[in-house]
Amino acid sequence: MVSHLINNDTIVALASPQGAGAIAIIRLSGYDAIKICDQVFTKKGKAPRPLLMQKSHTLHFGNICNGDYIIDEVLVSLFFAPHSYTGENIVEVSCHGSVFIQQQIIQLFIKRGARLAQPGEFTLRAFLNKKLDLSQAEAVADLISSNSATSHQVAMMHMRGGFSNKIKTLRQELVDFAALIELELDFSEEDVEFANRADLKKLVLTIQSVINKLITSFEVGNVIKNGIPVAIVGKPNAGKSTLLNTLLQEERAIVSEIPGTTRDTIEDEVTLGGVLFRFIDTAGLRSTTDTIEAIGVTKAIEKLKEATIVIYLFDVNEISARELELNLEELRKHNSRSEMIAVGNKIDTDTEHYIRKEFASVNDLIFISAKNQENIEQLKNKLVSIFDKNTINVPETVVTNARHVEALSNASHALERVFEGLNSNISGDLVAMDIRDALHYLGLITGEITTDDLLGSIFTRFCIGK
Amino acid sequence: MVSHLINNDTIVALASPQGAGAIAIIRLSGYDAIKICDQVFTKKGKAPRPLLMQKSHTLHFGNICNGDYIIDEVLVSLFFAPHSYTGENIVEVSCHGSVFIQQQIIQLFIKRGARLAQPGEFTLRAFLNKKLDLSQAEAVADLISSNSATSHQVAMMHMRGGFSNKIKTLRQELVDFAALIELELDFSEEDVEFANRADLKKLVLTIQSVINKLITSFEVGNVIKNGIPVAIVGKPNAGKSTLLNTLLQEERAIVSEIPGTTRDTIEDEVTLGGVLFRFIDTAGLRSTTDTIEAIGVTKAIEKLKEATIVIYLFDVNEISARELELNLEELRKHNSRSEMIAVGNKIDTDTEHYIRKEFASVNDLIFISAKNQENIEQLKNKLVSIFDKNTINVPETVVTNARHVEALSNASHALERVFEGLNSNISGDLVAMDIRDALHYLGLITGEITTDDLLGSIFTRFCIGK
Repeated sequence: MVSHLINNDTIVALASPQGAGAIAIIRLSGYDAIKICDQVFTKKGKAPRPLLMQKSHTLHFGNICNGDYIIDEVLVSLFFAPHSYTGENIVEVSCHGSVFIQQQIIQLFIKRGARLAQPGEFTLRAFLNKKLDLSQAEAVADLISSNSATSHQVAMMHMRGGFSNKIKTLRQELVDFAALIELELDFSEEDVEFANRADLKKLVLTIQSVINKLITSFEVGNVIKNGIPVAIVGKPNAGKSTLLNTLLQEERAIVSEIPGTTRDTIEDEVTLGGVLFRFIDTAGLRSTTDTIEAIGVTKAIEKLKEATIVIYLFDVNEISARELELNLEELRKHNSRSEMIAVGNKIDTDTEHYIRKEFASVNDLIFISAKNQENIEQLKNKLVSIFDKNTINVPETVVTNARHVEALSNASHALERVFEGLNSNISGDLVAMDIRDALHYLGLITGEITTDDLLGSIFTRFCIGK
Repeated sequence: MVSHLINNDTIVALASPQGAGAIAIIRLSGYDAIKICDQVFTKKGKAPRPLLMQKSHTLHFGNICNGDYIIDEVLVSLFFAPHSYTGENIVEVSCHGSVFIQQQIIQLFIKRGARLAQPGEFTLRAFLNKKLDLSQAEAVADLISSNSATSHQVAMMHMRGGFSNKIKTLRQELVDFAALIELELDFSEEDVEFANRADLKKLVLTIQSVINKLITSFEVGNVIKNGIPVAIVGKPNAGKSTLLNTLLQEERAIVSEIPGTTRDTIEDEVTLGGVLFRFIDTAGLRSTTDTIEAIGVTKAIEKLKEATIVIYLFDVNEISARELELNLEELRKHNSRSEMIAVGNKIDTDTEHYIRKEFASVNDLIFISAKNQENIEQLKNKLVSIFDKNTINVPETVVTNARHVEALSNASHALERVFEGLNSNISGDLVAMDIRDALHYLGLITGEITTDDLLGSIFTRFCIGK
């Protein structure tokens, strides 16, 4: 169906991150990949053989030249089809990480017959050559953008085919039933039933329950992928930004232990205990003056409602235990769904533990000094424990992809129609049609059913070079 | 001398640029590099042999695992000592380019006995293992930061040893003479002269002339490396920033033809015809109102003087030919050394060529429309031709490194003393001492003479992973 997407031209792209570094990787894939590289590569050593005469999975040191002009000393990795990522011939050129050199080499390959790859085109070719199914291919992009232990784990499970296998198993059981029902249609004159209706009903219910669990897992999956939304609310002088900085700074310190891997920190995301937390900007709340009631800005309340966790931060010197209880109550009116953590800040001023006694009547309070980084660990543990508590019932397979949820929902609706049809004893050909519908939607997930539009929208989301 | 710097521990670092991309490269070097990787790597396939039992220069597909937890599917490249960049065992792990995965793998290797590499430590090891001399090692850093054809060419020449060989040849000739003179000292009672004084004088003069040419080449070398300084001056509404944007945008357009290699553009640098031009911020001039005389701000004049090329940009509708000539004259008073290009902007308003006739008496004028990108090519060609004209006498070997210039100057001074000593017939041991001095300084360049401080200051300037 998508066979016209497979073509024999050779594509080229930078595969390592953009910018300067010690090494950069330029990747060629296609029928002529090795031949194109051979034209511009001179291996070091006496009477070296051309790359086409070398073995797969070998490395070669030499020069990439444009005529007499040496562009760089490089290492070339060879992969012969079908033993490569894309299933085609692949050459990876490892050059000095100068942006200028990267450009020169890519331009040289283009001049020699390669074409610049589209985003995701290497992985698209891997899919078209049946190296990966569609859901695994999508997981590659998730894997590259994973930034916490949990999101990494889920993406890895998907890439290794855990999710695909589950879908494929469900689908196969349905296919078998569909075949039996369609066989009946050929004998429709004779009024036989090859497919046991009771068994089919049971199967449909089982599959639906699995599908519905997968759909439910999306909420958790989404949280894993995008971070658990946490809103910090409180008066301007409560120390909100100091707290956020403290959380971020500690994270940065961990990252910078490995200077080579420091990432562009997104200011409001923090990974704690392997879980990504996304702090929601509640700037709109900053203009509130005295009481929580002043929150009354619609936008701010909406943001509050997005949050899975709300941290109510207050200055221990500013309010009484009674006021605190009232404020928390007020806050819960606006957001009863979220977990609420009340955090008393600035205990560095409370050396005598006088204030802490004042709040003794309030349950589950955490006292911190954001400035002195006191008790921050306790707050972190609390955040992580809330995640653990909320995800106790996570099915072992988690859906993280909106496209998959849509396909699962459509499959679930089709199965509902199958079930109703069976209950009302409608004719086999109508049941078969609804089963085919369900099969179609499940097939969309793994790519057994594809359309060019679908592939286009999936792979353009990739980075170039993958 | 620096033998204590060589140690057998294994270092690890990210070698590809920081950030997320399709692929990242993590590099291990040291005696245990392969053994450490073996502990956490599981090759795919039936009964795979450990990496230590594989051949050098081969590639292996498998998983990197922390216990049961699969961190990533990776490709491992093996290089056995001494056939590697550092001369040690090297493993390069090509993993998915997620920052999280990069961190996990590096941390895992550290846990298994590797140590995080210092900046430049891989290249330092290459130097200590005599894979590169010092000047070649320095050129590796230049190569990585090269951003134009000329700076790339010079760095490549240095890395391939062109400059080192020149220095080594000069040094060897001096060594031979020094040996003869020192031999005389052993026979000092007998008053013999093994070393022909006239020949020595000739040699010293020849070497000095080469060295001085190299020192002079530094100005050009510096310009090649850092860009030719160009100041654009003119009134605020002359169109200076439109011109700069036009120059930059065209450059960006070229770069973005290869989306994977787009670099973080430094706003004021443009590569034209393979030459880097660095535009100097003359913001100080922006506040001038009517005449060039108002330039009188010291700082702005200093900046003007830094420039090799000054572009005087004016609005063709605003001044007469007479005024233009006066302004240019005024400008030349402040900077007689630089090349001056007078550029009349906004010719898009001059459809009748009326204004162009008005300026017919002024020589070498370039008329452009920065807005409509008219005649920009002509201006670019002019800039490139000025570079070509000024660099006609560039010696084939160009010095780009301030450290090398210092060493060359010191060597030159020592040779001067040798020459004076020979002229005044001072005793051989004093001449020998000055020759040794010159040898010392020349040896500093290629690393035949090194100190730990010197190595430290050179290699800490490298990026991590190289």
